[in-house]
Amino acid sequence: MSATTTVRVRYGETDAMGWVYHATYLTYFEVGRTELIRKVWRSYRELEDEGLKLPVVQAGCRYFRGARYDDEIMIESRMTLPTPARIRFDYRIGRAADGVRLVEGFTEHCFVDERDKPIPVPADLIGRVMP
Amino acid sequence: MSATTTVRVRYGETDAMGWVYHATYLTYFEVGRTELIRKVWRSYRELEDEGLKLPVVQAGCRYFRGARYDDEIMIESRMTLPTPARIRFDYRIGRAADGVRLVEGFTEHCFVDERDKPIPVPADLIGRVMP
Amino acid sequence: MSATTTVRVRYGETDAMGWVYHATYLTYFEVGRTELIRKVWRSYRELEDEGLKLPVVQAGCRYFRGARYDDEIMIESRMTLPTPARIRFDYRIGRAADGVRLVEGFTEHCFVDERDKPIPVPADLIGRVMP
Amino acid sequence: MSATTTVRVRYGETDAMGWVYHATYLTYFEVGRTELIRKVWRSYRELEDEGLKLPVVQAGCRYFRGARYDDEIMIESRMTLPTPARIRFDYRIGRAADGVRLVEGFTEHCFVDERDKPIPVPADLIGRVMP
Repeated sequence: MSATTTVRVRYGETDAMGWVYHATYLTYFEVGRTELIRKVWRSYRELEDEGLKLPVVQAGCRYFRGARYDDEIMIESRMTLPTPARIRFDYRIGRAADGVRLVEGFTEHCFVDERDKPIPVPADLIGRVMP
Repeated sequence: MSATTTVRVRYGETDAMGWVYHATYLTYFEVGRTELIRKVWRSYRELEDEGLKLPVVQAGCRYFRGARYDDEIMIESRMTLPTPARIRFDYRIGRAADGVRLVEGFTEHCFVDERDKPIPVPADLIGRVMP
Repeated sequence: MSATTTVRVRYGETDAMGWVYHATYLTYFEVGRTELIRKVWRSYRELEDEGLKLPVVQAGCRYFRGARYDDEIMIESRMTLPTPARIRFDYRIGRAADGVRLVEGFTEHCFVDERDKPIPVPADLIGRVMP
Repeated sequence: MSATTTVRVRYGETDAMGWVYHATYLTYFEVGRTELIRKVWRSYRELEDEGLKLPVVQAGCRYFRGARYDDEIMIESRMTLPTPARIRFDYRIGRAADGVRLVEGFTEHCFVDERDKPIPVPADLIGRVMP
């Protein structure tokens, strides 16, 4: 249950320190998560069209090295189901050129229906993640 | 039909050149526009609650000088109704400390209803802008 | 060693779910931190002019409720010095209208000099935080 | 002197209207411009390493249709040299799935050296654009 996605750092994602602004990595996590969900299940957009959403309930991030403008970075994402009501993603972002570890982090999400009411992890996702 | 709003530049709004990233000024325009609409009419949020939205159909920007992190900047916004179906805002952003002109620009918007169908400028807004 | 800052949610800070995008809260944390540093010590911009920077080494965030466009939110920030080489900020973001808790989180920073080399917490800051 | 780049819309790039936030398109323009400069000349990052920067002096954008989360969009970028001191990029963004036109725009840039002083368009770029 993992996926690797490559993105190139945009200029607007850097800040005056010359490195990628720290909040941007949460956006990279989102890119990795989107591709992993697509690979394992179906696109998050389809999920939303079915009335399902996965708001973030918790996030964490450790910063080891900075990325610079135009760097290619690799986002490795893994998915687990820690409780019957939560889905968790762990991420590792490295520089594509040399594999140097830049950032590690996680996000934890619940599932909500169209009225923003929490619902359990859908059975067909459980079947895919823990067959 | 004008308003002045002050904001302080955030670190995440700068880029590796050390200045505010150019797309950020459109966000500052939005801040100015929000306060002008609130002053002249009612909050844009109330408009949305009534089923009315003002998507941007055109925008333009000229950059004279850059703003830096922590600069206080003043956003002057003016509102006009160039056609029966358009609302236009003109902006001038200056550095609060010394009034130096940084950026000038405009956005033009149409009005759409809940189904995203274009509608004419509401009569009560016309009454306020051109009494 | 605490400060409270109020900001109004911008449209561009929301996402298609209708709420503030989760990474935006790290930007609100930055706003709170900036004002707290200014209050306790001197402006972060002056620190940078002196060759001092505080890159983020760790961040965490728990999301309880979402903020909407045009909501006024209050950012409470506290500063501590957990180790001789770290400065930590804890944040609590609430809705200004009714005080409802929205988000809690923290960021931990090191100090680096102009060559991006880690340095200890400056003595005059220690004197202010732990008099 | 043109290039086409494909990007996928991120969730954080949308706003509460459900579409891509209008300022985000300037970021897509940047992605297109970056790839075009790399193709025609050398990477913008290399230019910066050589002490050359291309700040935006003017930008404009017309919005025809909105893009949604997870849409693949195609950015077509063209480069011209309207004056001895300016470089201009024209962009056309379309939906990859059906080619529908979403946004058209331009940015105009000057060249500045390490001290932010304006300089003429470098001769070797002129040679490549107008052989």
